[in-house]
Amino acid sequence: MTALLDLLDLSPDAIRQLVSLARELEGRKDLTHLKDQVVGLLFMNPSLRTLVSMQTAVAHLGGTSVVIQPGQGSWKLELRDGVVMDGDAVEHIREAMPVLAQYVDLLGVRCFAEGKNLADDLADQPIRAMAEHFGGPFVNLESAASHPCQALADWKTLDDLGIPAIGKFVLSWAYHPKPLPFAVPQSALTMALLRGMEVTVLRPPGFDLPGGVISQAVAAAAKGGGTFHETADRSDALEGAHVLYAKSWAKPDVYGDPEADRIAREPYRDWTVDESWFAPARPEAKFMHCLPVRRNIKVTDAVLDGPRSIVVPQAGNRLHAQKAILAALSEGGLR
Amino acid sequence: MTALLDLLDLSPDAIRQLVSLARELEGRKDLTHLKDQVVGLLFMNPSLRTLVSMQTAVAHLGGTSVVIQPGQGSWKLELRDGVVMDGDAVEHIREAMPVLAQYVDLLGVRCFAEGKNLADDLADQPIRAMAEHFGGPFVNLESAASHPCQALADWKTLDDLGIPAIGKFVLSWAYHPKPLPFAVPQSALTMALLRGMEVTVLRPPGFDLPGGVISQAVAAAAKGGGTFHETADRSDALEGAHVLYAKSWAKPDVYGDPEADRIAREPYRDWTVDESWFAPARPEAKFMHCLPVRRNIKVTDAVLDGPRSIVVPQAGNRLHAQKAILAALSEGGLR
Amino acid sequence: MTALLDLLDLSPDAIRQLVSLARELEGRKDLTHLKDQVVGLLFMNPSLRTLVSMQTAVAHLGGTSVVIQPGQGSWKLELRDGVVMDGDAVEHIREAMPVLAQYVDLLGVRCFAEGKNLADDLADQPIRAMAEHFGGPFVNLESAASHPCQALADWKTLDDLGIPAIGKFVLSWAYHPKPLPFAVPQSALTMALLRGMEVTVLRPPGFDLPGGVISQAVAAAAKGGGTFHETADRSDALEGAHVLYAKSWAKPDVYGDPEADRIAREPYRDWTVDESWFAPARPEAKFMHCLPVRRNIKVTDAVLDGPRSIVVPQAGNRLHAQKAILAALSEGGLR
Repeated sequence: MTALLDLLDLSPDAIRQLVSLARELEGRKDLTHLKDQVVGLLFMNPSLRTLVSMQTAVAHLGGTSVVIQPGQGSWKLELRDGVVMDGDAVEHIREAMPVLAQYVDLLGVRCFAEGKNLADDLADQPIRAMAEHFGGPFVNLESAASHPCQALADWKTLDDLGIPAIGKFVLSWAYHPKPLPFAVPQSALTMALLRGMEVTVLRPPGFDLPGGVISQAVAAAAKGGGTFHETADRSDALEGAHVLYAKSWAKPDVYGDPEADRIAREPYRDWTVDESWFAPARPEAKFMHCLPVRRNIKVTDAVLDGPRSIVVPQAGNRLHAQKAILAALSEGGLR
Repeated sequence: MTALLDLLDLSPDAIRQLVSLARELEGRKDLTHLKDQVVGLLFMNPSLRTLVSMQTAVAHLGGTSVVIQPGQGSWKLELRDGVVMDGDAVEHIREAMPVLAQYVDLLGVRCFAEGKNLADDLADQPIRAMAEHFGGPFVNLESAASHPCQALADWKTLDDLGIPAIGKFVLSWAYHPKPLPFAVPQSALTMALLRGMEVTVLRPPGFDLPGGVISQAVAAAAKGGGTFHETADRSDALEGAHVLYAKSWAKPDVYGDPEADRIAREPYRDWTVDESWFAPARPEAKFMHCLPVRRNIKVTDAVLDGPRSIVVPQAGNRLHAQKAILAALSEGGLR
Repeated sequence: MTALLDLLDLSPDAIRQLVSLARELEGRKDLTHLKDQVVGLLFMNPSLRTLVSMQTAVAHLGGTSVVIQPGQGSWKLELRDGVVMDGDAVEHIREAMPVLAQYVDLLGVRCFAEGKNLADDLADQPIRAMAEHFGGPFVNLESAASHPCQALADWKTLDDLGIPAIGKFVLSWAYHPKPLPFAVPQSALTMALLRGMEVTVLRPPGFDLPGGVISQAVAAAAKGGGTFHETADRSDALEGAHVLYAKSWAKPDVYGDPEADRIAREPYRDWTVDESWFAPARPEAKFMHCLPVRRNIKVTDAVLDGPRSIVVPQAGNRLHAQKAILAALSEGGLR
């Protein structure tokens, strides 16, 4: 495989080998996997962790990064086939991708959900089309439906802390002022199920995961041996939990209607993770989040600044995970 | 010559040597021409190809790039002499250029036409002033009136495909929703004439090339041996053509008046290149465009995705051409 | 010391050693102090000199730079503790800084004054908090109240020109269309006093330096042996001056009220430095400015383009000064 689009494309064994490679490369800054190579990093959306950790990963592997930001210094890109391009986008990915393939040896792309049509966003067509038109080694840096670099970093974080493969992983919805996409919740769920964990999805009534995410979860569970169920009962969800992974997501049945979503989420403004959530959990239960996180909206200062929070080392593992991904891709691809 | 501002500044022989150097460096990623050197890349306008291919070229030559984007992270620059700077621009090129000359070993600048006064834009004063105030090795990355990197890449593309030096080159106007500057049409015309080609400029009535562009074409023809004429007759223009190079440009006599230009170009909305245009051409005739291109506005999907289109390798040659330019400048300049 | 926040944190001897190191590294492009190291450069505000000279400095020292621009490609950062993050900023420096500390070996940050509350801006809390949360080697690239890289470059510039340590240094207010912060005037004043100079601050009535700046000046004078006084009398101020350093700043007693400041500065629109200002000065007196400078607003073309102006070599010293700072920080810190 020359393109990493979703963690589910890999077998649990292949993921374990990537985690092992990540551990091997961790702290090594004088590697040569990308010697004389140029890595393009195309960001259609903002970034802090990915922007910096990818450039650092490339530097540690001996390569050079080139950052491309359409709409901010670079032309806006058209993603849809067959359109008459009379709008804002002046360049089509059908030209941009093969052109970039002549300049860079590997391409990473961030392309968030459009947030209009749920089925379209879950189908993740734009990132798949970009990978296909590019043709060479390609990494998804968070698309409409998937964030495999984050998922691999999360897996390593769980391993680093000795959280058992069959441990209890709670993916919880939390309040956020805007409807957010499914890339991170779906990737965290996929990761935990591929790892073989007992997963509980905690969310308010009506915020059930959509069918497309459930289908992927079923596939991940089948491949990795994990189990999952959804609930709105916080105590039940957190009973005996090893990890609480917080993330917000849009209400599926009003997807694309921010005002309806706002009204629907209003009653759940108090879904801000605080210490009380952990009462039924294991005493040493950890708090995870992909960052950035709005303090005192999604989670309190006390939790983030307290001993349960592992968000900083979790983000640190982005660097190590991506070094492994880049190294594997540079050596002929992922299995 | 330490500054490459326009292809016409070079002799046809010097250009042929640059193309030959480009071919020699093509595919070489471990060069040392720019070892320990820093190349500044100043973009006053958006870019994809130039942004990435210049950084890749610098990396392949062993150097480091620094990207500068006035108005987007960097101060807006004043280009005019003698003004009272009480507007948006907080820094004058009279300071910015000599300051940059102390930091970087070579500077590339993109500075598009202002689009207000045709004579001013064709005089290309800002890029000339920047090169002069900078003082060191300098490359025009597309100015108001010239795009020499594109022109050199185009020349190499014609050579790569075995298009004869005396072949027929059609530069055609195509519809675009906005009035565009003369940098690319003038550079393509100059390039083809310096290469010795038989050039036909195809455009709607009223979109005749302005006097300043004609003067430069006359000079290029004299230097390179090519010939050119303008016509509004599509069949006549394309009769026996080896290459159709599409580009839009503003209506010269209403330059600076976008609304008048819009009205004038409205009747020519159907100037979208499609397969029918090629009927009188040679069977193997090629389609060229500098990109980005608005699909189904300037040219149809069918042409772009079909065998006539060479826009992708044409863009690929940007990298090779620029490596040659940078290598030559680093070795003491162009002849 | 692993963080350089203000020149006053260093002893005059330590500064002299840094200047000496800067001179030693000047012109050297093949250094290895930052081999295999990644330097993060976080710009919350625009930059030309710092953006380019820092990246060049890092390249000359053998390292790799990563530029981060919150709000322009990267998430907006929250600087205040304890807030409910329901606004524009989606990421807190309490996460961002420790996360970056896992990716980069050294961090430089530009974070201008908010311009609302003078005491808050002079306290310079945000940059101090960022340095603390980052934890590792850190350089202030201009904060609300300090610009140590500029100050060190200024010191070296004075040395380069043989301006005596006990020479007369005039820091003069000049007209500018907007109220500007105290970072540069305070740093220039601190620098000159640490260097032991006789400093006169020239400004219109009402534009007296605020108490916080005076306190720092007193401390710098005590440490470095310089003296200073303020005046509104131009001839008196420039009498026998070696250097005129121009800078604008806000009216302290209406700080945070741009309209009141505009009205107050209106009578001083003619405070544009021109040749006549130098009449009482030494014949060879020099003009300094940190750049960018609005021509014919703060200073005339004639002065900037004439022999008194040393603004270009002054900016050139930014590169050399920063190479010394980075080299010192990479070798275990500043004394």
